Amino acid sequence: MGLAPAHTPVLKKQKGAAVMDIWTNDSPIANSRRQWVPPRPAVLNGEFQVVADGVPKSPNGSGNTCDDKVKGAFPHLQGQEPVVLKSTSAGAALNGSSAPVLNGSASRTNGLQASEPKANSSARTLRVGIVLSGGQAPGGHNVIAGVLDYLTERHPGSTLLGFRGGPGGILAKDFMEITQDKMAAFRNQGGFHMIGSGRGKIEKAEDLQKAADVAQALRLDGLIVCGGDDSNTNAAVLAESFKSKGLHTGVVGVPKTIDGDLKNAQVATSFGFDTACKVYSEQIGNLMMDALSAKKYYHFVRLMGRAASHITLECALQTHPQAAIICEELHHSKQRLADIVRELADIVAARAKDGKNYGIILLPEGLIEHVPEIGALIQELNEVLADTGVDVSCHDSLVTKLTPANLAVFQFLPTEVRQQLLLDRDPHGNVQVARIETEKLLLQLLETELGRRAKEGAFSGKFAGLTHYFGYEGRCSMPTNFDATYCATLGYAAGALVAEGKTGLMATASCLDRACADWTVGGYPLVDMMCIERRRGKDKPVIRKALVELDGPVFGAYKELRQRWATEDAYRSPGPIQFEGPAANAANFTLSLELCDGQPINIA
Amino acid sequence: MGLAPAHTPVLKKQKGAAVMDIWTNDSPIANSRRQWVPPRPAVLNGEFQVVADGVPKSPNGSGNTCDDKVKGAFPHLQGQEPVVLKSTSAGAALNGSSAPVLNGSASRTNGLQASEPKANSSARTLRVGIVLSGGQAPGGHNVIAGVLDYLTERHPGSTLLGFRGGPGGILAKDFMEITQDKMAAFRNQGGFHMIGSGRGKIEKAEDLQKAADVAQALRLDGLIVCGGDDSNTNAAVLAESFKSKGLHTGVVGVPKTIDGDLKNAQVATSFGFDTACKVYSEQIGNLMMDALSAKKYYHFVRLMGRAASHITLECALQTHPQAAIICEELHHSKQRLADIVRELADIVAARAKDGKNYGIILLPEGLIEHVPEIGALIQELNEVLADTGVDVSCHDSLVTKLTPANLAVFQFLPTEVRQQLLLDRDPHGNVQVARIETEKLLLQLLETELGRRAKEGAFSGKFAGLTHYFGYEGRCSMPTNFDATYCATLGYAAGALVAEGKTGLMATASCLDRACADWTVGGYPLVDMMCIERRRGKDKPVIRKALVELDGPVFGAYKELRQRWATEDAYRSPGPIQFEGPAANAANFTLSLELCDGQPINIA
Repeated sequence: MGLAPAHTPVLKKQKGAAVMDIWTNDSPIANSRRQWVPPRPAVLNGEFQVVADGVPKSPNGSGNTCDDKVKGAFPHLQGQEPVVLKSTSAGAALNGSSAPVLNGSASRTNGLQASEPKANSSARTLRVGIVLSGGQAPGGHNVIAGVLDYLTERHPGSTLLGFRGGPGGILAKDFMEITQDKMAAFRNQGGFHMIGSGRGKIEKAEDLQKAADVAQALRLDGLIVCGGDDSNTNAAVLAESFKSKGLHTGVVGVPKTIDGDLKNAQVATSFGFDTACKVYSEQIGNLMMDALSAKKYYHFVRLMGRAASHITLECALQTHPQAAIICEELHHSKQRLADIVRELADIVAARAKDGKNYGIILLPEGLIEHVPEIGALIQELNEVLADTGVDVSCHDSLVTKLTPANLAVFQFLPTEVRQQLLLDRDPHGNVQVARIETEKLLLQLLETELGRRAKEGAFSGKFAGLTHYFGYEGRCSMPTNFDATYCATLGYAAGALVAEGKTGLMATASCLDRACADWTVGGYPLVDMMCIERRRGKDKPVIRKALVELDGPVFGAYKELRQRWATEDAYRSPGPIQFEGPAANAANFTLSLELCDGQPINIA
Repeated sequence: MGLAPAHTPVLKKQKGAAVMDIWTNDSPIANSRRQWVPPRPAVLNGEFQVVADGVPKSPNGSGNTCDDKVKGAFPHLQGQEPVVLKSTSAGAALNGSSAPVLNGSASRTNGLQASEPKANSSARTLRVGIVLSGGQAPGGHNVIAGVLDYLTERHPGSTLLGFRGGPGGILAKDFMEITQDKMAAFRNQGGFHMIGSGRGKIEKAEDLQKAADVAQALRLDGLIVCGGDDSNTNAAVLAESFKSKGLHTGVVGVPKTIDGDLKNAQVATSFGFDTACKVYSEQIGNLMMDALSAKKYYHFVRLMGRAASHITLECALQTHPQAAIICEELHHSKQRLADIVRELADIVAARAKDGKNYGIILLPEGLIEHVPEIGALIQELNEVLADTGVDVSCHDSLVTKLTPANLAVFQFLPTEVRQQLLLDRDPHGNVQVARIETEKLLLQLLETELGRRAKEGAFSGKFAGLTHYFGYEGRCSMPTNFDATYCATLGYAAGALVAEGKTGLMATASCLDRACADWTVGGYPLVDMMCIERRRGKDKPVIRKALVELDGPVFGAYKELRQRWATEDAYRSPGPIQFEGPAANAANFTLSLELCDGQPINIA
């Protein structure tokens, strides 16, 4: 395992205390983060009870009213109340930050010693399982640590089992016991590598039974699922199934995804979004300084985010690019690829008149799927390529098989992208959309358009482009102070919900616009976040992906400023993530705009 | 200009003091860095004299003995002595850090107020020009600030002129006056955008005359050139030319390049290398955590560095990848592409036996040029493509024109790379080597090799790869504390050398293995760093690029550890650059190994 310095033999060069750490696998920053103790909501420091929230429920978060169909799919879960952790320590209800401290953050260290558990008087031992599901997101290890700390502090002698490799690890009964000793190496570290992750789903009847058998065999009081919208939908299915089978194992979800598209009225943000956007924004800011210095390139930056463009939008607010493509807007305005290219060409031409032949364009990786005419082309290509023995290196024979509309789109595309469409096919013969380098596509189309304008005398600037993809390096960064704190809180809350025998809830932390001490902590019914969507020809209850709201404050802020950013050089360089000093405790702009109209959020 | 908050109107949302800075172009980290005052060698805080170093010169740094030819090319410069700034304050010579403080770092602020200059008694006003040459490197703005601070403190009333857009700005007499007010926005910031940069050269007789005319017209006492090996070679040419024409304008160089290939016995490192490597290493560390978590991808990471592989080597030491390709080693061992692929396949196969189907491979962008058979192929392709009307989308007709050896290499290459070789040609019809995505080439060749082994039953693992290029985002990052401090020191030294009427020297800071207070500061003759190289059929005196030394301590450390890193998961995640807290003041491993046998360097 990569980050466990205690287990790493030091090879040589032991001349004295100050030996360079090339010889171990540790780094000073990773090491110092391990020692860092995130702040904690005051309610978690004293005695608390899990009580009904009392706030009227909003119908399924999305404002949608398909309650009855959803309820029908979850007969055992429906009707649950949202809950909140309510302090029962004297004075705490009035002022969280002055609440009596059970294990105060000032003197708190990571992981209580076995000799000093401070449990509730009613403490019993619990057996809890945890699983990480789907793509990595910064902070996952802190969720695990949060659950473990809850158990250590409130139910000493309890057991935490981490299922390896995602939901598949449950079915395979592949797990490890997580102790404070083992946890120490992973606190505030990036990655999911302590127990791994996976994209498996537990949906089929036999898998649901297998999961129930494992939960029973391991005598689990609870199972905590960290995942995105799909994984939490799956958590609800599991909770329903366990309850219907009479199991006492509660299932609790934790909102994870760097894409930021798992949120609603009760879940302000998913963990990992803050860190990933800050990693990308640093790099974009650096590119901007480079563009401004060299004055000769347009940089096209593709960012993660397929269904939703939250990452691109947040990064745009952080850095002020010439343009950022927001798929939700494209979709709404029914823009075609040629329209996007024309708009970008207009910006390039306007800047060229000011002598500025450089700039930065941001785009989400989901763009290619959101452009209607490319979608249609891909669909036809899949069919044509599937049943012919076309020589794809010379595509003359292919093009005769396309309908005229799709052929026109195909011929509009640059050669390299045509090649990607023809060559990069999956084992079923389908075009691999994710492999298409949309940033190159856009650059090449823009080159073509500007060339055309130049011939017509409508453009006399210089144009040269460079492309970038910022993706995987944002998923496993060390979490920001915000994500580290948010995750530890969610983990602690999930532990508390499981201990109370709750099931089918998502752990939540609210009032994130305040200092961490004043956050409220609770659980919200997964079923009440769901609505019915048509998937593969069937109505299915799902947690709907939260898309960028075109009339919301985040897109509103961008819309207000983007005209100015397009032509001016209003670049903003956020710099590298800091764990101490200025902005170390600030949350992202998306949260600031959504929760408190642009007032900066500082968790400390 | 991007980073000047004082000049940026605030649009709206002025509800109170705590307004989110989306509405300005400033970021809290950028802003706090502006206020940061780098530490300073003690000698710069008191009175000092510029005196001959007294240390015997090593012949032209490279150990080469072509002195006479070089001397012949620089008759007016040859014979210069290295110089050092020697403290004349009482006690300072004995203990730098307890020297009387002229403008002590504890209370020092950025840019003295006009009311408090503390000049030498002999202060006269100077007129100095500065130019940034070549690619961006973190710290450039601090060199300018260092020169300005020298002038403000020691020669109040002096003038600093920044030539815009590189050496071309000198010829075009395009400059701006740099004042403390203007400088404030750029201190400790990334980029070269205050005055820009450019790749122009001043070599031809008429350009040398033009530069002399400008220097005379502007009455320059000195011209400071920040650049890499080529630009500093050019600085020597300029110094010789100015002196031969009887101009009193001194020319002083400053060693700049992220590639780290401008160094020798007197110049420990070039500025920017430290920051760029830390930016890349953070991202690589993140990818490693991702690889370790997902356990399904090999990541191929291309890094900057064409002639020399210092960046790849430093990043390998920082992160511990499965393999890092060092071009100097390839060159020495005369390895072909197929050899590299075979070695990588061996590593993948060995790991697959342990159930590890993931990993990280680092490669420098110069790789493609260092592989002999690709070089030969490109040369022939350039000729073939130049004089035929080949339809490059169907290359059947082309391949018949290649010699059998090159045809074999061509057919060994993956389709996508063949397309890049055929399609990406510059206006002269030449293949654009830099556009070839070597990381993809290597990945695809490895896929082919592993497929072959699988058919033969020699490989039964899974293999899937992802490619990355980390380049431009490292050139304009905010400089690390090391680079910020090194640059401010070099700038201050350059100012002092110019004031002393020196010319043809490179500003140097030495003893970098000690705390900054104890660094020595001086100047070394550019001519003594030069040797004769054959360029375009002519003998030319140049500053030789410093390549990775295969018998040096840095490659030695890698060689000792790489076998272990290949199969084990010994990943090291350095985390984001920190400006406060652990490791904030540490220098890179390359410097630590070269200067002090792996003892960590801490400048504070």
